[in-house]
Amino acid sequence: MRNIALIVGYDGTDYSGFQCQPHGNTIQDHLEQAIFVLSGERVKLHGSGRTDAGVHATGQVANFHTTSSIPAERWALALNARLPNDIVIHSAFSVPDHFHARRGAIRKTYCYTINCNRIPNLFQRRYEFHHPLPLDFQAMQQGLVYLLGEHDFTSFTSPLSKKASHVRTILDARLELEPASVNVLTESNLYHTSEWDEQHYPGMQRGVIRLYVSGNGFLYNMVRIIAGTLIQVGERKRKPEEVATILEAKDRSKAGPTAVPHGLTLCEVEYEQF
Amino acid sequence: MRNIALIVGYDGTDYSGFQCQPHGNTIQDHLEQAIFVLSGERVKLHGSGRTDAGVHATGQVANFHTTSSIPAERWALALNARLPNDIVIHSAFSVPDHFHARRGAIRKTYCYTINCNRIPNLFQRRYEFHHPLPLDFQAMQQGLVYLLGEHDFTSFTSPLSKKASHVRTILDARLELEPASVNVLTESNLYHTSEWDEQHYPGMQRGVIRLYVSGNGFLYNMVRIIAGTLIQVGERKRKPEEVATILEAKDRSKAGPTAVPHGLTLCEVEYEQF
Repeated sequence: MRNIALIVGYDGTDYSGFQCQPHGNTIQDHLEQAIFVLSGERVKLHGSGRTDAGVHATGQVANFHTTSSIPAERWALALNARLPNDIVIHSAFSVPDHFHARRGAIRKTYCYTINCNRIPNLFQRRYEFHHPLPLDFQAMQQGLVYLLGEHDFTSFTSPLSKKASHVRTILDARLELEPASVNVLTESNLYHTSEWDEQHYPGMQRGVIRLYVSGNGFLYNMVRIIAGTLIQVGERKRKPEEVATILEAKDRSKAGPTAVPHGLTLCEVEYEQF
Repeated sequence: MRNIALIVGYDGTDYSGFQCQPHGNTIQDHLEQAIFVLSGERVKLHGSGRTDAGVHATGQVANFHTTSSIPAERWALALNARLPNDIVIHSAFSVPDHFHARRGAIRKTYCYTINCNRIPNLFQRRYEFHHPLPLDFQAMQQGLVYLLGEHDFTSFTSPLSKKASHVRTILDARLELEPASVNVLTESNLYHTSEWDEQHYPGMQRGVIRLYVSGNGFLYNMVRIIAGTLIQVGERKRKPEEVATILEAKDRSKAGPTAVPHGLTLCEVEYEQF
């Protein structure tokens, strides 16, 4: 038996998440089916973790054991030919027998994308949350700092979580702003002009905001609740310092809403050794 | 009656083209319906021209006459709230009564996008043609030059065209290459490596190729047949000079295939005065 690891990307729009569900239509179902069509083997695929329905990935990692003699480097193109066009294998390689995509993961990075332009970006609309009003980017950055390090993230997970511990470590987190082009701000004659923005939302920004969060593990809905809370900070509905209070409360009802899944992408999963 | 012009973008994937069809589901149908829902008026919308089923737009122009008192600059946001999320109005403004989006157009620019990387780009897959092998970009540039200027484009339109004249002028045309990142070329362990490329396709390129074509008007399928022919030049199935011979032949069967619609986007329509 060989152990094959796959680096997988998907547009999660039309799927019920990564992990197998009773009603099917998951990324895992399609991957296991493609492996079966290719090799004739019914394998059990181990993903690095679930992603919610509608969430995307550029660097999900999964592994499976196989008796097939197909060379590791051929699996990627061969599976791609048998997968729907919204799932792609970026690469495939042999890993040590003990490698396990979930148990071995030491760090994951997610990106949540918020488009603060007046009109949605047609060609990115499936991959970003459209927030038609400007946000206070600096306040969001200030709020984010409180989440760095080891904390009990009970306030930032679903009350349905059954995990024994809600302590996780955020190893790195940053916000990037790609400012709206001058063209969009001044030449469009949409009803809300840049002068209107400055009058009603002084010091707030338009553009595409990307929230990158890396951690040693994430609870159910954790990144989406962080994003939903920071959006409220950006809207000045909450002060940045409230993020600390929310953490301390260990109470889901104190945090902001769960941001929509389609803004979220699992970017990278890292291992001690691959 | 006022005359309102709209600048419209759409993801054409799920539509039967811009212009009304007997079986519906066109961009025009949705726009006219949204105008009706907003204003109560059944208007006749004039687009700058058809786009085929599956073709996208970032700068389609359309106009309609209305007795509504809604200020011109409010139409964009008000219509966007009533349109499916794959159609957006970028702006709306009052134009002189005689303005006609089709008859007044003096120049249109289309872009055809070809992704020559081994695996498709998940998040752009609806908007670009995936060509998994490298192309000879310089040969494509040489072939394109023959199309500049005024020519009879009979070889580059559908035999079904009913136009009295197939003479059109290509005012500007260029090819841009965004080279594949080194990461994609060397670090991926997909079966075809960059050494394999250089051995089998010496001097050919990987990356995203964009073909921009501006003209005073385009025949049915014209840009897609130009793209399909230049792809064959890029594959070295034809020499660049053959483009001249194809033009002279005035025979559709001499040109390359009609490239898939989803790679094509109508970028801009220009007018003498707006």
